[in-house]
Amino acid sequence: MVSRKEVAQMAGVSEATVSRVLNNVGPIKEETKQRVREAAERLGYYPSAIAQNFARRRSGNLGVVLPYVPKVHIFSTYYFSEILNGIGEQVRELGYDMLLIFRKPGLDNGYIDLFRSQKVDACILLGTTDTPEERKALKELKDEGYPFCLVNQHFDDEQFPEVDADHEQGAYHAVKHLLEEGHRRIAFLNGPPQYSNSTDRLKGYIRAMTEAGIFKRKNDFTETIPPAWLGTGNYSRTSGYEAASRFFQNRDCIDAVFAANDRMAIGLMQGFRDLGLVPGVDIAIAGYDDSDGARITDPPLTSVSVPFYQMGKAAAKWVLLRASGSTTDAEETGAADPLYQIQMETNLVIRSSSMSNQTSLE
Amino acid sequence: MVSRKEVAQMAGVSEATVSRVLNNVGPIKEETKQRVREAAERLGYYPSAIAQNFARRRSGNLGVVLPYVPKVHIFSTYYFSEILNGIGEQVRELGYDMLLIFRKPGLDNGYIDLFRSQKVDACILLGTTDTPEERKALKELKDEGYPFCLVNQHFDDEQFPEVDADHEQGAYHAVKHLLEEGHRRIAFLNGPPQYSNSTDRLKGYIRAMTEAGIFKRKNDFTETIPPAWLGTGNYSRTSGYEAASRFFQNRDCIDAVFAANDRMAIGLMQGFRDLGLVPGVDIAIAGYDDSDGARITDPPLTSVSVPFYQMGKAAAKWVLLRASGSTTDAEETGAADPLYQIQMETNLVIRSSSMSNQTSLE
Repeated sequence: MVSRKEVAQMAGVSEATVSRVLNNVGPIKEETKQRVREAAERLGYYPSAIAQNFARRRSGNLGVVLPYVPKVHIFSTYYFSEILNGIGEQVRELGYDMLLIFRKPGLDNGYIDLFRSQKVDACILLGTTDTPEERKALKELKDEGYPFCLVNQHFDDEQFPEVDADHEQGAYHAVKHLLEEGHRRIAFLNGPPQYSNSTDRLKGYIRAMTEAGIFKRKNDFTETIPPAWLGTGNYSRTSGYEAASRFFQNRDCIDAVFAANDRMAIGLMQGFRDLGLVPGVDIAIAGYDDSDGARITDPPLTSVSVPFYQMGKAAAKWVLLRASGSTTDAEETGAADPLYQIQMETNLVIRSSSMSNQTSLE
Repeated sequence: MVSRKEVAQMAGVSEATVSRVLNNVGPIKEETKQRVREAAERLGYYPSAIAQNFARRRSGNLGVVLPYVPKVHIFSTYYFSEILNGIGEQVRELGYDMLLIFRKPGLDNGYIDLFRSQKVDACILLGTTDTPEERKALKELKDEGYPFCLVNQHFDDEQFPEVDADHEQGAYHAVKHLLEEGHRRIAFLNGPPQYSNSTDRLKGYIRAMTEAGIFKRKNDFTETIPPAWLGTGNYSRTSGYEAASRFFQNRDCIDAVFAANDRMAIGLMQGFRDLGLVPGVDIAIAGYDDSDGARITDPPLTSVSVPFYQMGKAAAKWVLLRASGSTTDAEETGAADPLYQIQMETNLVIRSSSMSNQTSLE
C-alpha cells in the first residue's frame, strides 16, 4: 500500500501538508493542492475516509430514521416513498449519501448516539409518535444542538424543527366537500392518535361538521359525535377493510365515510363492495394522501393531496445546510433560524367516489 | 465530556482495557467486560463510532448504489422499491444500516473508493449496465476481493457475484401464452440492450416464436423478424405510450404486444386506447414484473412475476455474511463460495389483457 510519505516525496511537500490537502483542512495554496492531488492520484494513494472523517469530524451522511413497521414493505408505501424521493433528490444535489436507519422496536437509547458516534452529520426522523420516550429523545437532540428535523409530525407544547402539512385544513376541505355533495351523516375513519396528523384531521372533521350544524358546540365537541361515526384504523388497507363491516352495521345512519389515508379508504371500498354496497353509488368515500392508487380505483377516489416530496426535500435542505454551517441560501431555507417550522398546504382532488345515489336524489 | 480515564478508574482497569472492551477487540473476561460497560454507561461515556470503526476497520453499513435516473422518483418504482424492501429486511435482521449512494452521471472513479474509504463493509449494485467502464469498475472490485453483488444484471464472459432472475424463461412463457391464446403476429417492446434482462427477454421471445414456426431458423434469427414487430423503449410509461402509435401504424399485421415491463405495457394500453383500440378486445397486451399496477389497470394486465424482494434479500445476506467473515449459514447462503450466482424463477400471471376478439373468434 502506498504511504503518505511517498506522496509527500513526489509532491515535494511535508507529510502534514499531504494530510491537510487531502482532508481539506486549513488554508493552502492552490498550486500546492494541485501538486499533492496529482501525486496522490498517480501513486493510487487513498487515505481512509474514516480517518479523514475522524479528522474532520464528519461522515458525509444524512441519516434518515425509519419506523419499525412489521410486515410492511416500507419503500412500497406512497407516503414513505415520496418523502424519501424528496430527501434523495436534495441529498444528491448537495453531495451527501443517505444512511437509512431502521428503528428497532422500543426506543433503545434515543437518537443522540447517531450523532455522538458520528455516523451522521444531520438527521431526519420519519414516523415518530407522541410518546414520553420520544419526547425525551427529541429534547435531548435539541438541547445538544444537533441538526435534526421531523417530517409530518409535530408535538404540542414543544418547539422541534419540523416540516409538516396543514392536515386540519386538509380534513376540513374533504368533509366540507362531502357536505356540499349533500351528505350529512359522515363517519370518520382516523389513524392512531399518537400521530399528530391523526389528531389534526380529527379537528378539521369536527370543525366542518360543527359549522354545518351537525355537531353542537359543547365543552367537549366529541360528546356530540355519534359513536358509530368514529372509527380508528392503523393506516393499513386491512384495517380499512375491517372497518367497513363495523360501519355497515350502522349503514342506515351513515351516508359517507372520510378515511384518514388512501390505503384505508381503498380497504373500505373493497369491504363495502363485498357487503353489497357500491362505493360512489350506495355510499360516498373520501381518502387522504392522493396516492397513485387513488387514480386507479373503481370508482376513482376523492382524496387530499399532500406535498410529501416537497416536504422531504425541504427538511433535507434545512438540516444539511445547518450541518454544513453554510449561510448561503440561509434566508431562503431558514437555515439561519435554529427553529425551522414549516406547514405546507394540502389540496383536495375531487373524483367520483365522493358521489352517491342520495346525492343525485337530493 | 467524560474521558476514557474516568471509565478506567471507576471500573478498576487500565485505559487500554476500556478500549478493548468497547471496541470488542481481543479476548477479555466476561466479568471485566461487564464492569467496564457498566462504568461507561453510568458515566455516559460514548466512544466515537468513527474512532471505533477506525480501530475495527468497519463501518457497519451496507452500501446500495442506485442508478442516476433523471426525473424518476426511484423509490416509487415497483422494481427498485421491492428490491430495497428485501435488502432492508435483511439489513435490519443482521444489525446493519443501509447507505444509499446515488451514482452520479458518468462513472467517476468506479466503486472501489467506497470500500477503500471504508464507507461501506459490503455493497450491492443496482441498475448497472453493460458498458466498458462498468466492466472495468466491477473487475477491479472483484480482483481486490471486496464483497459486492449485482442484482438483476449479469455480464456475459464475466464471473461476477449476482442474483438474477430467469428472464429468458419469463419472456418465453409470456409469448407462449399469447400464442396459445391464438395470437400469431406478436410484437415485442423491449428495454435498452445494455441491460442483460433486455437481451435475455429477447432470447425468450425469439425462442417461443421460433418454436411456433413463425420465425425461421437462420444464422441470425433476428433476420426473419418483421422490423415492425420490434420496438425499444426505456422502461418508462411514456416510452410505452409513444410506442403505441408506432405499432398502430402497422395494426393490420400485429395481433398482440409483449412489453418488457409493466410501466411500458400500461403506457401502451393508454396509447392504444387513445387511438381507438381497446386493450384486451382489439389488441392483446402482456407486461413484465407483475407490479401493483398490473392488478388495477382496466383490463387487468397479464404479466410475469419476478421475486425482486427475495432477490434483494438474498444478495444482502450473501454480501453481509462475506463481509463479516461469518461461516454460519455459509452453506445455506453460499457465503463460503467466493462466486455467488443465483438465478431465481419467474412466474406468469394470466389476466384479461392478453385476450382479444380474435381469440374468441378462432
